[in-house]
Amino acid sequence: MKPLARKTVIAGFGLIGASLAAAGKRAGVLGRVVGVGRSAANLDVARSAGLADETTHDLAAALADADLLVLAAPADACVRLLEQAVPSAPEACILTDVASVKAPLCAAAERLGVDARFVGGHPIAGGTATGASAADPNLFRGRTVVLTPSAQALPNARALVAGMWRAVGAEIVELDASVHDRVLATTSHLPQMVASALCAVAAAHGDRELVERFAGPGFRDTTRIAASDAAMWSAIARLNRDRLLEAMDAFGEVWANLRDGVAAGDEASIRATIERGAELRRRIDKP
Amino acid sequence: MKPLARKTVIAGFGLIGASLAAAGKRAGVLGRVVGVGRSAANLDVARSAGLADETTHDLAAALADADLLVLAAPADACVRLLEQAVPSAPEACILTDVASVKAPLCAAAERLGVDARFVGGHPIAGGTATGASAADPNLFRGRTVVLTPSAQALPNARALVAGMWRAVGAEIVELDASVHDRVLATTSHLPQMVASALCAVAAAHGDRELVERFAGPGFRDTTRIAASDAAMWSAIARLNRDRLLEAMDAFGEVWANLRDGVAAGDEASIRATIERGAELRRRIDKP
Repeated sequence: MKPLARKTVIAGFGLIGASLAAAGKRAGVLGRVVGVGRSAANLDVARSAGLADETTHDLAAALADADLLVLAAPADACVRLLEQAVPSAPEACILTDVASVKAPLCAAAERLGVDARFVGGHPIAGGTATGASAADPNLFRGRTVVLTPSAQALPNARALVAGMWRAVGAEIVELDASVHDRVLATTSHLPQMVASALCAVAAAHGDRELVERFAGPGFRDTTRIAASDAAMWSAIARLNRDRLLEAMDAFGEVWANLRDGVAAGDEASIRATIERGAELRRRIDKP
Repeated sequence: MKPLARKTVIAGFGLIGASLAAAGKRAGVLGRVVGVGRSAANLDVARSAGLADETTHDLAAALADADLLVLAAPADACVRLLEQAVPSAPEACILTDVASVKAPLCAAAERLGVDARFVGGHPIAGGTATGASAADPNLFRGRTVVLTPSAQALPNARALVAGMWRAVGAEIVELDASVHDRVLATTSHLPQMVASALCAVAAAHGDRELVERFAGPGFRDTTRIAASDAAMWSAIARLNRDRLLEAMDAFGEVWANLRDGVAAGDEASIRATIERGAELRRRIDKP
């Protein structure tokens, strides 16, 4: 495939950034790739594995002559990186990101006057491995990438970002940033809070040793994501505060109702809540 | 191994009852096995697979000359079955069960005057398959079985029930019934309520189609158990009401605190809750 960008800067060279570099180079859509990051060791891995043609800690310098900037860091870092990048990025450089919260990125792009060439993105993909050494050129194959271009986004910016993700095997869904954040608040950020709260309750149990001993498959599945990075999630909670609060309050209402049903021995009410959830859960498992 | 019981009645011949029959016969600790259940088709499977030597719908008739009665039904059915069995069971017949809530069974045994020969049990094992056709003689191998004998339980009753479970590969832990129910309220019943509430919230979302589409691995793991049987769980919620309420209220407090932290943008408080849970979650995964 013909390169869509002659020179791409990928800022943040962790699992997502490095995998995009690997997949984009293999597909031929990314020409020269410059990796920007803080860890010299990680950048060395990126260079020796051929994922980046050059690497640097200096985002401003890297951006000279760049056609495309991909911010591939946690959500809060993406906002900061966008602010740092805009003064140095060439006028024609297309800007995108991979953050799991989209409205703050789109707002920053508007505030910085670059919303015409900014197309926010969120690949619904990932894994527990980290760093450039975990790069997987197939990470995005068959996965969904949500793009959240504003009404001002130029056709060439939309085409470049969508074309890059399609070339690495992803399926594109375009959504308003606010819709994305409202949906992800329920499908991703709320489960994180619920799993963390459940583990915090277990940690405070009077028979904690027995609790750890009897934590069976149900407890383990329900709380798997509670082992995630606390700093990353507290930042997401800040960035998507209003949407997450809506979801948490919706949960709080269902919870209070379920609690009152248990207290009153109202089995019909308990069953109705469980059945409502079970119906959705079974649909999700259908092919 | 020498049979511990010449004639065992297993009332309820689903996954647990049928697997116990299979494992106990293979290990040689169960002699003659009589399967009692409601579904003629399921009892036919049990008999043709050699798991039961005879089968019947009539619990009272089955109990003639029995040395051991195992109630292998959901918790609420076990209480009813114990009430039905006691008038017909021989004086020397040892009684046990596999219910996931123990205090109501122990209380029923005391009320019925059989606490000396009743030893409550709860194998922490199971699966999604159901019925005698899913019988697995290795289901209990390496798993924990909690036994909750009262102070009145006779040594021969404790020895028979513990010996049976050890013979099929399980490890025995003895607990007070109330401690069992308090611990399981947090490790099993609370996660069920949390997962069900989370799915009920997702089901009521304004963008439900998108929610189903973006329910990724995190959402799926966190809610896997929400597809469980609503009638079984509403019965467990009734039988373990006070302990479950304690656990739900503990969760409600952590939840309110987390919600207020999100509302206030208090990242330090959010991080502290997530870290407290993550620390426990990581310990559980350690070998």
